[in-house]
Order: sequence, then C-alpha cells, then structure tokens
Amino acid sequence: MRMNRRTIQIQWGDCDPAGIVFYPRYFEWFDECTAALFAAAGLPKADLVRTQGVGIPMVDTRSRFLIPSQFGDEVTVETACTRFGRSSFDVHHRMLKGRELAVECWETRVWTRIVPTGDQKLKSQPIPDEVIRVLSQGGE
Amino acid sequence: MRMNRRTIQIQWGDCDPAGIVFYPRYFEWFDECTAALFAAAGLPKADLVRTQGVGIPMVDTRSRFLIPSQFGDEVTVETACTRFGRSSFDVHHRMLKGRELAVECWETRVWTRIVPTGDQKLKSQPIPDEVIRVLSQGGE
Amino acid sequence: MRMNRRTIQIQWGDCDPAGIVFYPRYFEWFDECTAALFAAAGLPKADLVRTQGVGIPMVDTRSRFLIPSQFGDEVTVETACTRFGRSSFDVHHRMLKGRELAVECWETRVWTRIVPTGDQKLKSQPIPDEVIRVLSQGGE
Amino acid sequence: MRMNRRTIQIQWGDCDPAGIVFYPRYFEWFDECTAALFAAAGLPKADLVRTQGVGIPMVDTRSRFLIPSQFGDEVTVETACTRFGRSSFDVHHRMLKGRELAVECWETRVWTRIVPTGDQKLKSQPIPDEVIRVLSQGGE
Repeated sequence: MRMNRRTIQIQWGDCDPAGIVFYPRYFEWFDECTAALFAAAGLPKADLVRTQGVGIPMVDTRSRFLIPSQFGDEVTVETACTRFGRSSFDVHHRMLKGRELAVECWETRVWTRIVPTGDQKLKSQPIPDEVIRVLSQGGE
Repeated sequence: MRMNRRTIQIQWGDCDPAGIVFYPRYFEWFDECTAALFAAAGLPKADLVRTQGVGIPMVDTRSRFLIPSQFGDEVTVETACTRFGRSSFDVHHRMLKGRELAVECWETRVWTRIVPTGDQKLKSQPIPDEVIRVLSQGGE
Repeated sequence: MRMNRRTIQIQWGDCDPAGIVFYPRYFEWFDECTAALFAAAGLPKADLVRTQGVGIPMVDTRSRFLIPSQFGDEVTVETACTRFGRSSFDVHHRMLKGRELAVECWETRVWTRIVPTGDQKLKSQPIPDEVIRVLSQGGE
Repeated sequence: MRMNRRTIQIQWGDCDPAGIVFYPRYFEWFDECTAALFAAAGLPKADLVRTQGVGIPMVDTRSRFLIPSQFGDEVTVETACTRFGRSSFDVHHRMLKGRELAVECWETRVWTRIVPTGDQKLKSQPIPDEVIRVLSQGGE
C-alpha cells in the first residue's frame, strides 16, 4: 500500500489547560493526513471536490491515545489505506513521537458524490479502479 | 445510570465546504457533553481540575456518523457513563436529530492526577466511590 | 438599534496552556453572536444562505481583550449593528464578565451574493431596506 | 526588523459552507506565525513559557480581509515586530496569495509573567533588551 508521512508541529492553540493536545485536534490532523495521502497519489481532494463533485466523508473513526504531546513537540503521522470495499474504504494513521507510537487512528470513509442541493444529500458511489490502483501502489 | 441531555445548535463555522458538520467538531461537543454530565452530577470539571488537580483525559474514542447535520440544525446529545473500572471509565453519547440517531460516540477516559510539571505527566488514580455513586444514580 | 444578548460557557477546549481562552475562539463566538442577532430579527442566516444565496462575509474586524476568561466562566455578549452603508455594515460586540467589559469587538461585513462557482466569487449587493429596518428597531 | 515567512496550506476543515476560509482560522495562523517569528529569532515560545514562565498574550488585534482563500490554496505570511514599548509590542502580518495581499493583521501583545495560580493572573513585565535586539535584527 502507498504510505504517506506528514510532520506536525504542535502549536500553543492546539493544547488545553493541562498543557497537552486537546484530543479533537488529532482528528483535524488525521483528516489533513488522509487528504495528503490522496494528494501524494495524484488525487488532490480540492480537485476531486471541484471537478468531479466527489467527497470522502467519514462514517466511522476511532483513535487510541497512548502518549500525550505538548506545545513545541514535533510528531510524524504515517498514513495508508488498508481496505477497499465497493464504495467504502479504510484508512490507518500512526502518529509517532520519535520512535514511539503516540496516537493511532482508524477511519472508514465512503466515496461519495456531493449533490449540491439544500439537502446536502450524500450518495455513495463505487470507488474508481484507478483510485484503488494509485492508493495501493507502494508510495515509499 | 445518570443521563444528561445537551442541545447543540450547529453554527456556520462548524460546517465544511460540503455544507455539513466537519466531523472533528463532534468530538469537541462530546467532550463538552461529558463535562456537562459531570457538572449535572455535582462534579464541575473546573472544580475537579483546580481544587483537586484531577483530569479525565481520553484514552480511546470512536464515533459512527449516520446522518449529517448542517448549519441551522439543532441536535440533542444524551450522555451517560456506562462502565467504571478501577481508574478508567466509559462514556456513551447518542446525538439525536429529531428522533433519529445521527451520531454515536464511545469514550474511555482515565481518572488522573494532573502533575503540574513541565512534563505534563498524567498519573491514573482510583475513581473515588462518591464519583461513581453520583454518576450511577438516575439523573432523569 | 436592536440588541441581542447571548450567554457563553467557556469550555475546557476553548482554553490554552496558560488556562485562559485562546483568543481566536472569541472570533468564533462573535461570528455566532452576529448570526444570533440576525436570527432574533427574523433573518436566520441559514435561510439567507439557502433561499436567497446571501452571505455576510467579514472584511475587517478588531478585538480588544481586557479581562481574560477561563474554563468554567460564563460570559454574556451584547451585539448590535451600529452602521449601515450601501452594502457594508458594522457590528459591535461587548462581552461582559459580570458587569465588567472583558472583550470588545468591531466588525465590518458586506451584504453579498454567494455565487456557487469554483471561484467562490463574492459580489456585494445593496442591503435590503427591510433588513436595515428589522436590525434598527429596538430589540430589547 | 527581522521578518519571518511561513507557508500555509488551506485545509478542507478550515473552510466554511461558502467554500472560503472561516475567518477565525486566520487568527489561529497569525498566532502561529508570531510564535514562528520568535522561534526564528532563537526564542521558541515553548521555552519562554516553560523555563521562564513568560507568555505574550494578545491585548488588541485587527485583521482586514481583502481576498478570500479556499481549500487547496497555498498562502505565505510575512511577519515582523513593528514596535517595542516598555512591556507591549506590535506585530504585523501580511498574508500573500501569489503576489497579492490577501489578509493583513495587526497585533498588540504584552510581555507577561504567567503566575500559575487558579486566578490565571497575568502580570506585564519589561521586555528584555536581548529580546528586542534579536527581533529587531534583519532576519532575511
């Protein structure tokens, strides 16, 4: 599978009064990491949305928080797709602090046509073979 | 178990270019809902942190997203603790849109002493019996 | 002028490692307060956007931070429009902590037609007389 | 004056239903840009906070929004201190989209000793000469 690495510098505003990252921020970063994986595979999400009307909304996500991070820390996230169904697919993120696993996240998303109505209806679509191909190839 | 309800109005800034809630916001709301459950049980988190040096950091959380919400929607979250271990405990959130389940979330948190050092060390502690008692009683 | 009041409870995730509100959060709340003023005047922003394709983007905003707030505090924001031009208008927010002014904010926004193209072009429009009328009437 | 440049990639979650950046995000980025200027001058904010108990809270900030940005855009922020008083100082940010000025921001912050009490008292302090010296030198 293609794997993409992304480095994140923990900012002051990411942290809570206990001095550690406020955990919803991790989900923001993982969303960016999934977009970065797609971009690295030649599928920038901005293009998917604008030229194809395609989105990849989340249907299920889970994170385990093993080691807290704080302001000034630098962490690395390794991201890869781990499963392709007909229209759903799984993404796995490993956030590393040095060599230690700090946070782990699993996502299930759906390949979706965004219908630009007032209803924000989301219709699942079969994932194109080409998309599966470029995300399956070894990226590193 | 004590259950607490909290109403949330979806704001413009909570939504993404697809017009639906950007999913990390749900985790921010669920964190507020857990704090609201504790407050309703006579355990305001601000007091826990300041007078007892106690925090309840997240160690594992998962959400399923069933129905998207958009700007202007009003949703209700029902929150309850569902398990108490020695120092860890589980929280369950059900976000309802009208009568339909829109988002569901499970949390495992740890009763923790915040040690105010540069290291932000978090040390798990046994959950006091009194805490378990007030969170277990029927709140509604 | 119509004035609208909104109460805000400061949440754990709104605060930074110094234990006080991370200041960009104030701008999120002021944006919600402007939307709440419009809603109180019978102009819910969700309707403006969806049925009329109208937005009120920010062109200039300034805040003065006089008294910090922390987790567990409750503050009240008083919001009113203070000027109407042809297509631009000013909004003023006073955030009160008890009786003391804690934060003050000034906004200039533009009445805008949202053109749903890839360019996100924003075209200013004359503010309808009816809008000026309902926002000018004494709300309290 | 020392000037620091920082590149920002606009993410999906930074944008609102109109498809453009939700303006409070700009303030988050400017806060990061000020921290990056200090870090470039050999004054990483994490060290200031932890080893010296010093913070630089905002007392007044204003932004003008000239050109909207959207998901997938890359912008550059040029940041410099423009004035040093006894304990307050000004920072100026210019966000460029290509060669055009997209957003401009002015900040007044105060050199402050963070007193780690429940009161979150902030006490202004004279800015050390060495800090003024390294921020005044030409950084580029």
